[in-house]
Amino acid sequence: MPGLAPKGRLAIIAGNGFLPVHLAEAARVTGENPFIIPLRNESDQRFDGFETATASIADIVGFDRIFREKGIDRVVLSGGVTRRPDWRDIRPNWKALRKLPQLVRTLVSGGDDALLQAAIGIIEAQGCRVIGAHEIAPGLLARTGPLGAHKPSEEDCRDIEMASEAARRLGELDIGQGAVSVGGRVVALEGVEGTDRMLERVATLRSEGRISARRKGVLVKLCKPQQDMRADLPAIGPSTVENAVKAGLAGIAVEAGRALVLEEETMIAAADAAGIFVFGIDLGLSNFGSLNGGLS
Amino acid sequence: MPGLAPKGRLAIIAGNGFLPVHLAEAARVTGENPFIIPLRNESDQRFDGFETATASIADIVGFDRIFREKGIDRVVLSGGVTRRPDWRDIRPNWKALRKLPQLVRTLVSGGDDALLQAAIGIIEAQGCRVIGAHEIAPGLLARTGPLGAHKPSEEDCRDIEMASEAARRLGELDIGQGAVSVGGRVVALEGVEGTDRMLERVATLRSEGRISARRKGVLVKLCKPQQDMRADLPAIGPSTVENAVKAGLAGIAVEAGRALVLEEETMIAAADAAGIFVFGIDLGLSNFGSLNGGLS
Repeated sequence: MPGLAPKGRLAIIAGNGFLPVHLAEAARVTGENPFIIPLRNESDQRFDGFETATASIADIVGFDRIFREKGIDRVVLSGGVTRRPDWRDIRPNWKALRKLPQLVRTLVSGGDDALLQAAIGIIEAQGCRVIGAHEIAPGLLARTGPLGAHKPSEEDCRDIEMASEAARRLGELDIGQGAVSVGGRVVALEGVEGTDRMLERVATLRSEGRISARRKGVLVKLCKPQQDMRADLPAIGPSTVENAVKAGLAGIAVEAGRALVLEEETMIAAADAAGIFVFGIDLGLSNFGSLNGGLS
Repeated sequence: MPGLAPKGRLAIIAGNGFLPVHLAEAARVTGENPFIIPLRNESDQRFDGFETATASIADIVGFDRIFREKGIDRVVLSGGVTRRPDWRDIRPNWKALRKLPQLVRTLVSGGDDALLQAAIGIIEAQGCRVIGAHEIAPGLLARTGPLGAHKPSEEDCRDIEMASEAARRLGELDIGQGAVSVGGRVVALEGVEGTDRMLERVATLRSEGRISARRKGVLVKLCKPQQDMRADLPAIGPSTVENAVKAGLAGIAVEAGRALVLEEETMIAAADAAGIFVFGIDLGLSNFGSLNGGLS
């Protein structure tokens, strides 16, 4: 039909964690036939029933061949990347990359955000549009307010505010997305180790008596202020609930509309059973107006 | 002599770590006869040869008796405090504290800075002046520039700037004082766990390949912008060097004049032997002007 461009195939470049699998399945439900590119040393899930071709993250500058061969016109970056490509991995035939020392520097030492922008730029230069996971599966985005049976108490709301302020500042520095506040005091900040490790640290500090046993506390994960929705959205899932419970927290708060919730049904069932809340903060409203709104 | 008030005795309230012992010895050298109050469940060193009386941190409101008995007129708060006093520990005869619900709240859940201000206020209300460790032992303050044989490289200076910016923001939020940057990227931020634990985390992330093995990186510890010099100055010592070496760092930078260096000779010998730098940043000069100055 004139005016309607023929739609090409979707590719999912898959880092670690469950998100790429969820996304592949969600894409199939919408009628896509996604081609999966699991990243070597990162992807840790099976993509049974999907066409796949494993690649190194350093291969990204050479994806144009596979994009052409498979008729791919849209790409989603999905899952975590914990290892940085090293400049020594750059292959001699990568003309584009050799011409771009700044790009190499970014890939090797930039913050997460700078790295992702570089990756998006490289992919789009090869003729594909990079889209966000939420454009394929909008149902994965966190809703506003309590997602399960439990709601934050007044004290929890104070912890949400404290941890949000810390997470926001971390995000401004392109360091991390998560923070834990207990009894109105920020006790842990997420760096390269990731959310699950940070929560393990809180559990350890708690068992050692360095965090009050009588104050529960809250995990907050926010988008970075400058976050590109096409990559690295904060995500929570059943393992987040499991680790939050071990850390003795009262609940988890994420940014509504800008954070992904994986296996929501399983996660909420676990949260409800453990008596912890999962809350979507609407940062579109001024301050935490919606937080109170969600509670009233 | 008229005009010269008779000088009372000095008390050192001792938290954990080596600093209180160093301070007690430094005070004795200056002619003081310090009375040591090791904090129960915190103090972990012996004070052989000093008069001591162990107390709980919750006893702080009842120190007036011992201050009077021992003729104490000046107090130094020294060493770390990892456990918060709990409101349930407040004893019925603590009239002052029961009248001050805000103070109780601060002691239980305030940030480190708020907690220390409260402690200082309580002690001074009992007739003693609280002074800083550096007023007893000014030689413990970090000097400007390289303290040992090694100096930061250009890449290290970039890491110092990155980690300093992160540490400054943490300090503004009264969360922590330390940050680690590797290859221009902040990888770890210090929360309640403390510097040594943060460095252990960096060592683990490095061994797992989540931090480049080819970039060294720097630990920075700064004063909080609002820091009261009478308490909780950032400190480094031989164990900091040992852990920085295990974490594969190129060096350590602290705020000159506002950070304490413990066992400097031992620490510098270890740093020199391991090939890492220890550097005093002069934040009195605009930006990192002095950093470059120290290198030129």
